[in-house]
Amino acid sequence: MDRLPTIEDVARAAQVSRQTVSNVLNTPAIVKPETRKRVEVAIRKLAYRPHASARRLRMRKSSTIAIRLDPMTNGISGALLDRFLHALTEQAGARGIRILLFTAADPAAEIEQIRKLRAGADVDAFVLTATFHGDPRTEWLVENDVPFVTFGRPWGANDMNNPKHLWVDVDGFAGMREATIHLIDQGSSRIGFVGWPSLSGTGDDRRRGWQAAVEERLSLSDAAPGARDLAALSLSVEDRLDDARHAVVALLESDDRIDGLVCASDTLALGAMIAAASLGRSGLPIIGFDNSPVGQALGLSSVDQALDEVAGGALELLLGETGGDLVHRDGAAGDTRHRLITPHLVIRQPLRLLGTDAATTPTAA
Amino acid sequence: MDRLPTIEDVARAAQVSRQTVSNVLNTPAIVKPETRKRVEVAIRKLAYRPHASARRLRMRKSSTIAIRLDPMTNGISGALLDRFLHALTEQAGARGIRILLFTAADPAAEIEQIRKLRAGADVDAFVLTATFHGDPRTEWLVENDVPFVTFGRPWGANDMNNPKHLWVDVDGFAGMREATIHLIDQGSSRIGFVGWPSLSGTGDDRRRGWQAAVEERLSLSDAAPGARDLAALSLSVEDRLDDARHAVVALLESDDRIDGLVCASDTLALGAMIAAASLGRSGLPIIGFDNSPVGQALGLSSVDQALDEVAGGALELLLGETGGDLVHRDGAAGDTRHRLITPHLVIRQPLRLLGTDAATTPTAA
Repeated sequence: MDRLPTIEDVARAAQVSRQTVSNVLNTPAIVKPETRKRVEVAIRKLAYRPHASARRLRMRKSSTIAIRLDPMTNGISGALLDRFLHALTEQAGARGIRILLFTAADPAAEIEQIRKLRAGADVDAFVLTATFHGDPRTEWLVENDVPFVTFGRPWGANDMNNPKHLWVDVDGFAGMREATIHLIDQGSSRIGFVGWPSLSGTGDDRRRGWQAAVEERLSLSDAAPGARDLAALSLSVEDRLDDARHAVVALLESDDRIDGLVCASDTLALGAMIAAASLGRSGLPIIGFDNSPVGQALGLSSVDQALDEVAGGALELLLGETGGDLVHRDGAAGDTRHRLITPHLVIRQPLRLLGTDAATTPTAA
Repeated sequence: MDRLPTIEDVARAAQVSRQTVSNVLNTPAIVKPETRKRVEVAIRKLAYRPHASARRLRMRKSSTIAIRLDPMTNGISGALLDRFLHALTEQAGARGIRILLFTAADPAAEIEQIRKLRAGADVDAFVLTATFHGDPRTEWLVENDVPFVTFGRPWGANDMNNPKHLWVDVDGFAGMREATIHLIDQGSSRIGFVGWPSLSGTGDDRRRGWQAAVEERLSLSDAAPGARDLAALSLSVEDRLDDARHAVVALLESDDRIDGLVCASDTLALGAMIAAASLGRSGLPIIGFDNSPVGQALGLSSVDQALDEVAGGALELLLGETGGDLVHRDGAAGDTRHRLITPHLVIRQPLRLLGTDAATTPTAA
C-alpha cells in the first residue's frame, strides 16, 4: 500500500462497518469482545494510526498555538521577538504544544488569517505581539471569544485588576528605575533618558521609571545643578541607531554636565555609545534595555527582559494553572489574567569605541 | 451556538443525512437540485465551514512545512537561522504555506518528532538545518521517502550532479574568494584566515576560497615574504568570540606583517576586531561572513548569505517548478535537485574599537 491505511481499510480487513472501527477506537466497551479483537488485529496488521487531524477534529483541540512572524527589520532590539519565539517554542514543546507561524501585512490581514486558522480548527490559541492602543486585533479576538494572550499589556484603566484579555509583560518601570539607581549609586548625578516619542505605553512606562529614580535619589540641592531638570534631560526619538546617535550628539553638545544615560532599548543605547565616542566621551556610563546579542558583544549594560519567564507566563495563562486545556479563562479575575515579569539589570564592562562618522553607511563592493 | 457548527448540525437543519451534506460539499452533481439547495441554505444559515483539518485529511496535504527551532545560543552568527526562518515564513506565506515549529534535543528525538508529524498527516515536508556528515536524520528521511530539503549541502561525491536529497546552500568558496580578492585589491598582501576546526564541510569550503584567492593573486615573489605561507596564516577555532579573540591576538603577536584577515563567520570576525584593537591595530582590514546585525552595527564588512534566495530556493525545490504540489521530485536529475546561491560582499567603514580586556565578562548587578 503506497498510502497511509484509512479507517475504511481497517473496516474492510476486519469485515466490520466503519462505525464499528470508530467504536473500537473511541468507546470500546460497547463493542462485543470478539469483534473488538478482530478490529484490533486489523489495526495492528495494517499499522493503522487514527490521523492526528481527525483526532484533533474530534477534540476541537489541535495542541497548536499560532503567532505572527514579521520580516526582520531592526537587528538589534528587533531580535527580541526572535528570542521570545525561541523561548515560547521550547516551553510549548515541553508541554506537547507546537507553534505555527503565519504572516500578515497589517492588522486587518492578521485578523483574516486568525479567522481562517480558527475556523479550520487548526489552532487553539494565539499569541499576539506588538500590540498598540486601540488595537483592532485584540478587540476582534475578544468579541469572537478566541483564546489569546498578548505579550504587551493593554494599558487601559483596569489592565491590572480586570484586563480585557490575558496578557504578559515586562515591568519596564521597575527595570528602568533599577538601571537609573545603579548609575546614581556609581556616582552619576545628571542622568539623561533616551526614549521613544510618546503614545507608546511601553516607552512612557520606562520613562517614568527613570523619572522616579531621579526624584527619589537626587535631591534638588544636589551637587549637579538642575539634576532633576527632567524635560531638558529627556530625548524622544524613533528606535533607530542613527536617529539616536544624532539626538544624543546634540544633547551632549548642549549640556556637558550629563554624566550618565539610560535608554529605552539597546538600539538607542548603541546609538548613544557611538555618539559619546564621536565626542571623545567613550567612558560615559550608558545602560540599555533588552540585553540584546549586539549589546552583549559590545559589553553594553542592559535590562534583561527575562524572556523565559515571559514565555512561561504566556503559556500558563493560556493553559490554566493545571496545565490542562487551552481555554480562555474568562471567569477568572485578578492576577490569574496577567503576568507582570520583573526584569533584571546586567552590568558589563563596555568595549570602548573610537567613532567614525561613516560607521553605519554600507556600500556595495 | 457556543461552538463551531458541525456537519451533523447542517444535516439536522436541512433534514438530510450526514452523507448527503458530504455529497453536497464534495460531489454536488450527484445530489438532487432541491436537496442541494436546502443543504446550501443550511450551510449559509449556520455559517458552517468544512474543517480545514478534515479537508487536509482528505487531500493528504496540509500546506504546512515543519522546521526544528533550537534554543538561542550564539547571538552573532547564530542569528543567521532566525533570519532564514523569517525569509522562509514570508515566502511560504505568500504561497499559502505555513511553517510549523518543533523542538528536539538530538537527532534521534528529531526523527521521532518528524515521524509523528508525518504519521498524523499534519506536515507535508520538512526543512532541515545544521546538517552534518553522516547525519542520521537525512538518511532516515530518504529511507522513509519523506519530502525534505536541507539548508546545507550533503558534501558527498555526487552532491552536485546526483545528490541523495534536495538541498540549497550558499557558495562559501565563492564568497570567501571574493572577500580575499577585495582585500588584495585594497593593498593587503599577507592575509590570514580565521576558520573552524576541520570536519566542517562548510568551513573547509570557505577556507579553500581564501586559499584560491591567495594562490591566484599573490605571487611567490610578492613584496611580503611568505604571503602564501598558508599553514602559518590559517587559524582553526570554535565559533566563539573569546576563542577567536585569543587566537588572533596570538597570531598577530607572532607575525606583525599580517595586513588583513578574512573570517568564516561574523562571530570570528568580531573576535578578530577586538583582538586587533587590543593590540592597537584597530585599523586592520577584517572581513566576516554572514552579514549579521551585530556586524552591521559595528560597521563590519561581511559576506551576505542572500537568505531570501536561500528560502526561495528551498521552496522551489519542494514545490517543483510549477509551484504546485509539495512532492519529492526524486525522478529529476542535475540542478533541479539543488540550488547553490552566490553570496555577495558588503563593504562597510568599520567603527574603531578601543579594546578592554574585561569586555565580554558580564557581572550580576
